Parts: sequence; C-alpha cells; structure tokens
Amino acid sequence: MQAEIITIGDEILIGQIVDTNSAFIGKELNKIGVSVYQITSVQDDKAHILKAFAEAEENADIIIITGGLGPTKDDITKHTICEYFNDTLIQNDAVLKHIEHLFAKYISTPISDINRQQALVPTKATVLLNRFGTAPGMLLEKGDKTFISLPGVPYEMRSLIQHEVVPFIQKKYNRPHIIHKTIMTYGLGESAIASRIEVFEDSLPKEVKLAYLPNLGKVRLRLSAKSFDKEKIEADIERLSKELITFVEDIFVGFEEESSIEAFIGDLLAKNKKTLAIAESCTGGNISKMISSVPGASRYFMGSVVSYSEQVKINALHVPKELILEHTVVSAEVAKSMALGIQKSYKVDYAIGVTGNAGPTKDKTDASVGKVYIAIASPEGIFVEDFNFGQPREKVIQRASVKALELLKKTILKKS
Amino acid sequence: MQAEIITIGDEILIGQIVDTNSAFIGKELNKIGVSVYQITSVQDDKAHILKAFAEAEENADIIIITGGLGPTKDDITKHTICEYFNDTLIQNDAVLKHIEHLFAKYISTPISDINRQQALVPTKATVLLNRFGTAPGMLLEKGDKTFISLPGVPYEMRSLIQHEVVPFIQKKYNRPHIIHKTIMTYGLGESAIASRIEVFEDSLPKEVKLAYLPNLGKVRLRLSAKSFDKEKIEADIERLSKELITFVEDIFVGFEEESSIEAFIGDLLAKNKKTLAIAESCTGGNISKMISSVPGASRYFMGSVVSYSEQVKINALHVPKELILEHTVVSAEVAKSMALGIQKSYKVDYAIGVTGNAGPTKDKTDASVGKVYIAIASPEGIFVEDFNFGQPREKVIQRASVKALELLKKTILKKS
Repeated sequence: MQAEIITIGDEILIGQIVDTNSAFIGKELNKIGVSVYQITSVQDDKAHILKAFAEAEENADIIIITGGLGPTKDDITKHTICEYFNDTLIQNDAVLKHIEHLFAKYISTPISDINRQQALVPTKATVLLNRFGTAPGMLLEKGDKTFISLPGVPYEMRSLIQHEVVPFIQKKYNRPHIIHKTIMTYGLGESAIASRIEVFEDSLPKEVKLAYLPNLGKVRLRLSAKSFDKEKIEADIERLSKELITFVEDIFVGFEEESSIEAFIGDLLAKNKKTLAIAESCTGGNISKMISSVPGASRYFMGSVVSYSEQVKINALHVPKELILEHTVVSAEVAKSMALGIQKSYKVDYAIGVTGNAGPTKDKTDASVGKVYIAIASPEGIFVEDFNFGQPREKVIQRASVKALELLKKTILKKS
Repeated sequence: MQAEIITIGDEILIGQIVDTNSAFIGKELNKIGVSVYQITSVQDDKAHILKAFAEAEENADIIIITGGLGPTKDDITKHTICEYFNDTLIQNDAVLKHIEHLFAKYISTPISDINRQQALVPTKATVLLNRFGTAPGMLLEKGDKTFISLPGVPYEMRSLIQHEVVPFIQKKYNRPHIIHKTIMTYGLGESAIASRIEVFEDSLPKEVKLAYLPNLGKVRLRLSAKSFDKEKIEADIERLSKELITFVEDIFVGFEEESSIEAFIGDLLAKNKKTLAIAESCTGGNISKMISSVPGASRYFMGSVVSYSEQVKINALHVPKELILEHTVVSAEVAKSMALGIQKSYKVDYAIGVTGNAGPTKDKTDASVGKVYIAIASPEGIFVEDFNFGQPREKVIQRASVKALELLKKTILKKS
C-alpha cells in the first residue's frame, strides 16, 4: 500500500508559499497503514501534471492531488484530469446547490457563471463534499488505483481528508499497520547517541527502521515497523523501545506524544483546575501564542505580559528597578522577578518568566547573543535555569519557547 | 535554466516535519533567474534516491538535494551520491579541522570517530563550508549539470544557499531574468476578479503569466515573466501591472513587498521614531510574536498584554468592568478600551486592541464564532473595525493578526 502526493501550483515552486498540506496528508495516511512513497510538487502546466500523474500511477496505489481547483484560468487540474482519464466535464447538481448556498450565506458578491462552473466535474468522478469551500473534491478509480483531487486551501483539504478520503481508503483497501514510536532525548548529539546504541541498532530486525531526528537540542529516535500482523509489531516496537531506552536512560525525556506539548500542558492544567500566566521578553509573545493555540485555552490561560522594554518590566511586572540595575535585564534574578510578578498580579497557580537576548546584536545588554533565563513559579515555589541557545534569532525564540514549556510541564507533573 | 529540488527523509513523507527548505530555495533561485521545475521528496532509500537523481538530471540543469547528511546510519545521501557518480569517499582536511573547531568551541561531548567521518566527501566533490554545522555542502559537476547536496537543518542550508550556492550559479550559468510582480486586492473573490479582468487576461503576451492566489480574504494577482532581455520584461511587467490595477482600483491594497508586513511596519516605526504596544485577546500573543520576530524590534516595540481572561482586561488594561457588562467582552467598545488602556499605561504612540471569539465554541460570550473587533489607537485618535473571520480557530487567529497589522500599517502611513 503506497500513496503519492502531488501538489500543483507555481506558487509552491517559486517559494511564495510553503507546502504544509503534504505533511498533514502524510501523517493521516500513515495512521491508517498507507505509506507515502513520494511527494511531488509540479508547475501549473498540463504536460508536467500529466507526466506526474503517469509516474505516480506506476509507483503508488493511491494518488492524492492538491491544488489547481480554483475558478480561474490558471487552475487547470480539472481539465488535466479529464485529459488523463479521457473524460469530459458535466454539471453536478448537488455541488451547484452547495455553491449557491455558500454564496447566499457567506459571500457578499453575487454568484457568477465562473462560480457555477465549479460545479462541473468529470463524468467518471465521485464528488466529495467540500464543507468549507466551493471547489469539490473528486475521486476517480482506475482498477486498483485511486486518484483523489482536493483543493489546496489547507482547512478545506484537511476536512476532506478526514471526512471523505480516510473513510474511503479504509473501506476499499486492505492495509497493513504502520507503527512509529519516537523516543525523545535531550543533551547529547546524534553521533554520540549513535556510538552508544551501535550494538542495538545492528541487531534490529529487518522490518524495523531506526531514524535519528535532531532538532534544536533534542534528538528524537524513531522506531518504525509495518506489517499486517498488528499485534506482533506492536509487541516488537514496545519491546525494542524499552531496550533502546536502557542505552539512553540518562538523556531520555519521554515519548513523543501524539498531542503537542501545549495541548498536553492544557490537559494537565484543566484537569487539575490550575491556571497559568506568562511574562515573556525575548520570546516576544511566542509562548503565549503556543499556549493559546489550543482550543479551550481560556479555561486555564489567564494572559501574559510581553515586556519588551525595561519600563514595562518595571511597571507591568513590578520588577524592582534596582534589581535590573544590579543584575542587568538579562539575568536569573529578573526572570524570577518577572514570573513572581505576573503570578501575583494575575493571581495564577503557575507562571513563566523569560528574559534573554535573541540577537542578532547584543543591544544594550551585557548578555551574549542566545543567552536566556527561564523561571517557573508554582504554588510550591520558584526555580530558574539558564541556557545559551546560540544563533540565529528564530532558533533562540523557538528553543526558548519549547524549553519553557518543557520546564513547566515537568513542574506540573511533579505535583499532579 | 531549470532546477529541481530533491528533499530526502522519511520524516517528510510520514508528516513528522513540514518541508520549509524548498520554498526558501525556490525563492532564492528565482531571484537569480533559475526556475524550479519540480520539488521531489523521497524516502531514505538508496534505490529511490538514485531514481530521483536520474529523473532530475533529465529535467534540470541544477539539482539541489537537501537532507540525509547526518552522521548516523539512516543518513545515506553521501553514499548514494558516490554510487551515482561512481565515486568513493576521501577525508577532507579542511572539513575535519572545522568539525574539530566546532566541537572544541560549542559542544560539551568529546568528538568521536562518527563525527570525524563527516569529513569524508566524494573525491569528485567540491566542498562548501557549512559555517553553522558539521555536515559540509558538496557540489558535483557532470558536464553542464550540477548536483549540490546540502544539510537539511534549515539555518545551515540557508547560509549555504546564500553564501555558496547562489554565487556559484551566478558564475557558472548564463541565466535569464525572472520578474514577478504581485498585486494585492482585498474584498472580492477570485472569480469576481476573473470576470472583471477577462479582457486584460486574454490579451496578455504569451511570455507573461497571470496567477490568482486567494488566501484568507485577500486575492493576490501575480504577473510573471522570464527573458534574457531584462529591460524589456521589466518595462512589460511595469506597464501591465499598471493596466491591471485600473481594473481593480477599488479593491487594490498595494503591491506585495519583498519584506513581510511586520518588517515593513518596523521600518516605518523606527524611521519615524514611534513606539508600539499591543493588547491582544483572541489572537493570544500571535500579533506580538509577529512584531517581535523582526530583528531590532526592541527599538519600537515596548510590549503587550495578552488578556485572555476578563480580570486581566480589567486589571492590566484598565477596561472598566461596567463597559464589559454593558457591551460584553467581545465588542467594539472593549477593543477600543483595550487599545487606549495599553497606549496610556505603556506610554506609546500606537496601540492595537483586539478582542474576539476564535472558537471553536461560543464560550461565555454572545458573539458568534469568528467575530473579531480590532481597534487602532494613534496619536491622532482611535478607530475600530469589526470582522467575521468564520472558522476554524487557526484561521481566525491568523486573519485577525494580519488584518490588525494591515490596519496599523495604513494608520502609520497616513501620518508619515
């Protein structure tokens, strides 16, 4: 069982947008036992798209195509599908009704002929309802092979994958099980880990793959297996992951959860009926943004202060001016004072305080670029840790944010 | 002049990471007249990589490969290159020295044989210095074709593209010029625009392409041309973009700048010596995160309050409790009060106030999901606008953030 993803659009190839759709599709397909053989991004060019279709049909059972379904002339996916399947377009009344409904309800401009043309679909296609947009998904079968064309708008595509594509594949195809288990380590480089686990790696059964995923200070070790015998590979991966951990016990920080760290923290806080506030400086709102991205965050997240300037640290977070003068603004003392200041004034159980220098220049601080102090205040007390996240700026912001959430998670877990 | 990008790594195909490298490379190559024909993401599998190399060599002059250069066993790019070029590995002393230097300076674990092996490169390769990491870039020529292998770590790859790859291509290849000009419109759907500009679109010269890029309420119209005659296409695109604007004058909001809106605002504020603070509610820190992502933001960005809870709006932003009771927390009045509250307490020239309901549920508010009020306070006064950004949550947060920055930009531009 293999799939190939084809994304269509010049905007991807000239770098005007980042293709986030493919990662989503890859993840969803993996969950139901379908491997993605290849992702191919091609231009808005008929000959090129036809070539990609033919190559994908050779390699894969399921071909998922995104993009090029808009109502304008540069959108040629539908016509190209017709050419590939030797088919013609016909009006689908259900789609037309849906388009008219969307226009009546949400869109201020009157519906036009161009909009109505979105109801034209290849005669051989099964239509997949796009709840959030006017371009329908389309599914065409060619023997055992299935071509599925979806709009490129991310939330429209996602809804179609979850509500239409996944159920279809589950029904049509007999699929193996794919299991990934990812062990997270912190504090050792990938080559040092490789030396340690060499014996383990060499003894892995052929059907189990090990991958190293280094990212901003963490190395994730992913074990993957694929088989129709679900119980066997589940047992294998369970046993092998336990064995692997014995080699990295001192640097092992946990398994990669299906949910993000911010969702995990949210669950913990909501379950324990605890609240959180954040005082950020160099991370500039990024930690708050992560925490508030979780639906329902208002149950436990009270708010934040982004204290970019010294004056805001003094006025809004009640950091004593003398403390800043004595220790400088990038210091353990100021991080602690920020966390305690917001914990008290926002009346929360947990608070994060972060101060540092994200670069690129040292600015007015003495702290070197990349230096960050993170303080966590809890009902039990406060602690602070210091880090040097190096360069460049975006890496410092990203690593400091993730590290702050990791420290918060550990602190909450200790007490729950 | 065509290039193909090949990204290597199972983590891309199973959706564990999003490939952001390709968009960066596509953009940089376009700037120097190189079109990207295709982006292909393949598994960590030798046969598959060899097949991708061979296909890319047929289609493209320059093949840029990222990923698979780590020190561990799952990284097979280097060995696969050797097989493709019928080559062997040899130690490169300059690379070894660089690796030893990085270990001595930044890495606490001692250097190992596995690390030293990263200094092994194909004998036919020219080494490209990786300033930020241990895996060198490699460049191999095969007649007119060039294969370039880069590490997958984004900031390492970016530095190599800018400092090594671009200068090499500029020297070796005679390239045409590629020009894109993107016109931004707001308020009309892509099909309505297409109807309006049909005559214009049909009369475009063959070498000029028009693309529609709808995204969260904006439709961008991109004109592209490619030619060795730089002056001619510059004049053509200039003339055609002016002509295009005459059809969409009422919805035209500007040209897409090379720089992001947050960088543009930053430049404006710094130049005018003005300051900014932000009071965010439903956007949860995202606007602050965008503003502070710009290096040097501390010159004009004083800070923010993320007032997720009502109590924070009252205490930290001085929104009167009666105002909330009278108008509810998601209202024009509260947005204005938030902006004025932070403008005053943070002593800034400009302030943003945002309140809304990002969903997925209505929660305690009466406002429908997607409803957002955005207020902009300036030295000249204050105004507020209301929007309905629909669903889902991430779309509401994203659209509200971008819209707030657009309104701020307009307000600053009026006065500068």
